Amino acid sequence: MTLATWIDGARADAMPVPWSGLEQGDGVFETMAVVGGRVRLLERHLARLATGCARLALPLPDHARLRSELATAAAVPGAGVVKLIVARGRPGGAVDGATRLLYAAGPRQRPPAWWSEGVIVHLCALRLAPVPELAGLKHLSRLELRLARAEWTDPSVAEGLLQDVHGAVLCGTMTNVFAVVDSRLVTPDTARGGVAGVMRAALLDAWRAAGRAVQVRELRAAELERAGEIFLTNALVGAWPVRRLGEREFAPGPAVREAQAYVAGWSA
Amino acid sequence: MTLATWIDGARADAMPVPWSGLEQGDGVFETMAVVGGRVRLLERHLARLATGCARLALPLPDHARLRSELATAAAVPGAGVVKLIVARGRPGGAVDGATRLLYAAGPRQRPPAWWSEGVIVHLCALRLAPVPELAGLKHLSRLELRLARAEWTDPSVAEGLLQDVHGAVLCGTMTNVFAVVDSRLVTPDTARGGVAGVMRAALLDAWRAAGRAVQVRELRAAELERAGEIFLTNALVGAWPVRRLGEREFAPGPAVREAQAYVAGWSA
Repeated sequence: MTLATWIDGARADAMPVPWSGLEQGDGVFETMAVVGGRVRLLERHLARLATGCARLALPLPDHARLRSELATAAAVPGAGVVKLIVARGRPGGAVDGATRLLYAAGPRQRPPAWWSEGVIVHLCALRLAPVPELAGLKHLSRLELRLARAEWTDPSVAEGLLQDVHGAVLCGTMTNVFAVVDSRLVTPDTARGGVAGVMRAALLDAWRAAGRAVQVRELRAAELERAGEIFLTNALVGAWPVRRLGEREFAPGPAVREAQAYVAGWSA
Repeated sequence: MTLATWIDGARADAMPVPWSGLEQGDGVFETMAVVGGRVRLLERHLARLATGCARLALPLPDHARLRSELATAAAVPGAGVVKLIVARGRPGGAVDGATRLLYAAGPRQRPPAWWSEGVIVHLCALRLAPVPELAGLKHLSRLELRLARAEWTDPSVAEGLLQDVHGAVLCGTMTNVFAVVDSRLVTPDTARGGVAGVMRAALLDAWRAAGRAVQVRELRAAELERAGEIFLTNALVGAWPVRRLGEREFAPGPAVREAQAYVAGWSA
């Protein structure tokens, strides 16, 4: 449920067309959680946006202005999510520069048991293609991910996990994945593909600061079969334990509870 | 230069936001030439649109209504190009169904010598990733193609040719490619990647009907080095001879002149 929309900082309910970048998936975006009227993990979102703009040679929006606009959006009564799109060109036809489209929306409701007991996950048939130029980027050309998401319709399935053509697990359609394999916490290297999530980065930094080793490496689908626990992270949901992947059942373990505790601390 | 815009058949200058499909590259499009106030190769565009919608499980727009809307757009004074986008969801927020965005625009001006003498072509460094689910589709998740297009800024370079990671030539950033190799006319198989262009399909059918063999197969970049002629096709430009690719110079040959003659017949 969208509550308010801004184009380049000005309130708008409609967008002049055409807008070349938006129509060709040429841009980046951030989906941010609003907690207590403020954007959670704001600095990390701004940093990733800057990295994405640099990699796509998109003009970087002024950060002071962005902070102000994001604060305004987060303060909208009822806001639970703020989404920012930066796409090349300008609404109305110009192909130079970049334009930002900002939404404040209500929170996305999900069953509380998805955090406490865990989620059911589908292993997607679609294999992600390797595109080194786009690896890690949160970009707008998401058709592969949308096709993967369309593989299931059962609303009790929360997410789908994606592999590359070599059977390496990369990410979910909207989450990053962690697993405890041979008592070691592992997450895939996003240089191989998938999105470099801000929640993933925040958790990696927190664990490193606490002296806990996390392996960032290739994670094979076969390793998930024997994982002690699996969990999924993103900026909106924090961390979800996986309770079923295909035929295999899992129980929430200590690693996901640690992750959820960190997220709770960042949400205070 | 956009002359007029329609959303689901109604004139509009702006589009309600958000529109989930357009913002995630989840849709297909057709860019059509207007000649004499009518869409050239209309039936082929409609057929490809239907194929694309079916492959993405997008509701197919009603063809009778589409024909009427395209005829209206093509009849706009000064129109040279009509572009139709079909993206999942509805402007304003609903995620079901699909919505069409239609533009009438002026013709794209290019130097006449690009048809008579040929074009200069850049061999792109970016290698297209194999995505079997998307091969041949004219879809909206075009960021790879946009990055490839950004590899050159010299306006005298008309197009960039793209290979896959194995060195097979797939397409240009906006064209299909034909080459005469060992006296045989060859074009890459779009099942490997790239867009299945309507002009490519129309030429293939015309040559087959005339009893001329065209090989649809893998085309290696090394084969282009020794090609007798190379030419590029799309719905808007028809056929351009390549006069330079990298360091190698070519002259327009009889195959591209045949192609141009067919296009002239379809433009009458």
